[in-house]
Amino acid sequence: MTALTVPLTVLGATGSIGDSTLDIARLAGLPVYALSGFGRLDKLFDLCVEFRPSRVGVPSGKVDEFAKRLKSANLAIDVVGGQDGLAELASDKGAGKVVAGIVGSAGLGSTLSAVRAGQTVLLANKESLVMAGELVMNTARTHNAVILPIDSEHNAIFQCLPKAVQDDNTAIHRTELGIKKLWLTASGGGFLHKSYDDMKNATVAQAVKHPNWNMGSKITVDSNTMMNKGLELIEACHLFNLSESQIDIAIHPQSIIHSMAEYVDGSILAQLGTPDMRTPIAHALAYPDRMESGAKSLNLFDISALEFIRPDKDKFKSLTLARHAIQTGGGACIALNASNEVSVSAFLDGRIRLTDIADTVERVLNDDELGAEFGRHFDELDEILALDKRVRDRTDVYLRKLTD
Amino acid sequence: MTALTVPLTVLGATGSIGDSTLDIARLAGLPVYALSGFGRLDKLFDLCVEFRPSRVGVPSGKVDEFAKRLKSANLAIDVVGGQDGLAELASDKGAGKVVAGIVGSAGLGSTLSAVRAGQTVLLANKESLVMAGELVMNTARTHNAVILPIDSEHNAIFQCLPKAVQDDNTAIHRTELGIKKLWLTASGGGFLHKSYDDMKNATVAQAVKHPNWNMGSKITVDSNTMMNKGLELIEACHLFNLSESQIDIAIHPQSIIHSMAEYVDGSILAQLGTPDMRTPIAHALAYPDRMESGAKSLNLFDISALEFIRPDKDKFKSLTLARHAIQTGGGACIALNASNEVSVSAFLDGRIRLTDIADTVERVLNDDELGAEFGRHFDELDEILALDKRVRDRTDVYLRKLTD
Repeated sequence: MTALTVPLTVLGATGSIGDSTLDIARLAGLPVYALSGFGRLDKLFDLCVEFRPSRVGVPSGKVDEFAKRLKSANLAIDVVGGQDGLAELASDKGAGKVVAGIVGSAGLGSTLSAVRAGQTVLLANKESLVMAGELVMNTARTHNAVILPIDSEHNAIFQCLPKAVQDDNTAIHRTELGIKKLWLTASGGGFLHKSYDDMKNATVAQAVKHPNWNMGSKITVDSNTMMNKGLELIEACHLFNLSESQIDIAIHPQSIIHSMAEYVDGSILAQLGTPDMRTPIAHALAYPDRMESGAKSLNLFDISALEFIRPDKDKFKSLTLARHAIQTGGGACIALNASNEVSVSAFLDGRIRLTDIADTVERVLNDDELGAEFGRHFDELDEILALDKRVRDRTDVYLRKLTD
Repeated sequence: MTALTVPLTVLGATGSIGDSTLDIARLAGLPVYALSGFGRLDKLFDLCVEFRPSRVGVPSGKVDEFAKRLKSANLAIDVVGGQDGLAELASDKGAGKVVAGIVGSAGLGSTLSAVRAGQTVLLANKESLVMAGELVMNTARTHNAVILPIDSEHNAIFQCLPKAVQDDNTAIHRTELGIKKLWLTASGGGFLHKSYDDMKNATVAQAVKHPNWNMGSKITVDSNTMMNKGLELIEACHLFNLSESQIDIAIHPQSIIHSMAEYVDGSILAQLGTPDMRTPIAHALAYPDRMESGAKSLNLFDISALEFIRPDKDKFKSLTLARHAIQTGGGACIALNASNEVSVSAFLDGRIRLTDIADTVERVLNDDELGAEFGRHFDELDEILALDKRVRDRTDVYLRKLTD
């Protein structure tokens, strides 16, 4: 079976990863086995009409209504609901590839279900690895699941690694493969050439704008504080089985080189392209082959010169916090992610300053009461979610101190 | 047997490829089976003392003298002489890898011998593929020889291609591998930002200087006229089994990206590094593994911004001439190379202008008398060398017309 006939399940089909994935499916005529969407049900319905999947996942309260709507359109599609429904779709082997495109901690459960079922998982959900990196990777190994990263940086690194590491990420330590370190590139966000004071005084409108990528508000704020790169660093540690000291971060404002792998002979392999998510998704959909993505090809002669800048650690404290978290353990990573999410929301609500986000995360990571959990590793989703909840509550306390 | 215990034969051991190769051998303690050198016999002797090879190749008139010298140093090394001796060393399976580092058409015979013996050949000798590309590649296929390119551009491309193509260059056309085109990068030489008139009036001293690489006079002149990139284009067509239309050329003045492969999904894979020949040589020596090369690793933060410029076809006519030659056939490539060599010599002797080189090559490629040979393919080394000779003589006629 070639990549072009493997049926897909797309979780988070109405979001931006879903859009890009289904664009490629349209272009290549890929069969779609299942879709899910919890937010935009009208859009999900239209996708059902277009792609005629066998199964579809909706919020638990919407199952009957959605099933009726499909039936009246003469579509015989099995409708499942809620997180249990997502888990069912994720583990259903009717699909050959599962695109985990649900954003945030809501995507963690279904990613784990897919991995536990030994699926080939195209992973866009950052939180799965930040909150539960060890659990997800260990489960994948136990159940022979394949995880293919589809965010642009990790996909770029994956493309630059030898076949042996693509097949088994623990091979990255085989000295004869000569991998020296990985380079994650970062755009540097909208405040790269601005001062710390400019960041401090940034408006919400300024902080939800990104120079290169068109993304949601939360991730754009993360990009502007560089917490996004900190989270990606943690992801990379898990995906490629490395410690944080083996991964360097370079600000590359043009976002043309999407990341790199450096070898002991002095070679650096890099993946370049236009900033279009369809490229990494098509790569993973077709892997180990390749397919058309619909993305515009890069015109080297049109681009401005490519630059590399060392991140300013004082301005982008998030990077240091993320390195600290992954060094400390699974609990600290959960805390980093949860306190950041809550703080970003507070910023978007106009309650705190942009620079308060990292300061709040730092306070949470230094919190004595939570601290006992930070060095722990977590083998159960429930425990992860319980700590996540505790951290969110504690973050609220710190935020109230700031805003009172 | 790992790469680090495979014995090497280094043909052209006293030249710049030899220097780089033996630097790596020194660093890694690689065993050396045979060496050859025709120019600097004192240096070759020192290398024999250091590396204690089993065999050594010298000019035919020097065999006895060199053998005596080795004997008086208590070195039991078999000495062979001339082109026959080189052919013998090249085909001797006592070596696991043969580095073909002899410059110019003098390296063609021994490259062919190595390939015919089914060796793993690390190819630096450009002329082997420019003058005899079909013969060398067909012979390699027939005799299961492996050709690993070690000039920086072709090695970079090799690193950016999938394993399937690295193992068999005809796989490059398998559509599921999704290779769209190759990008050869060029420094643009010392006249990139100068006018055609500046090139016309260039002194020899100006034309033997290169902004990035430290190379011999002939190749530096070729780099300044961009004929070097034209010759590399022809090499790439043979090495990677592509037509010239599938290979693009980008001027990249920083010489940091050494070349690239573009895929249908929008990914471009690139190999970056400092301009140090030890990197590609170490890559090929260790392939499919990696080893330390001694090359300084690239500091991304130290480099100036990377640029890409479309070559000016009027100023760098050599590129068009090379594309024309490979489209026309094997004879035209022999003519391109020979007329260029003779013209570069005439330039270095102060007899013609820098811009006369391409003009002379163009006249030769339009020569009616030779023209009948240009579309031919050549299966015999003797025929290739005979045409090479005819072209050189004819080029002299054109050069005399210019200088009389």
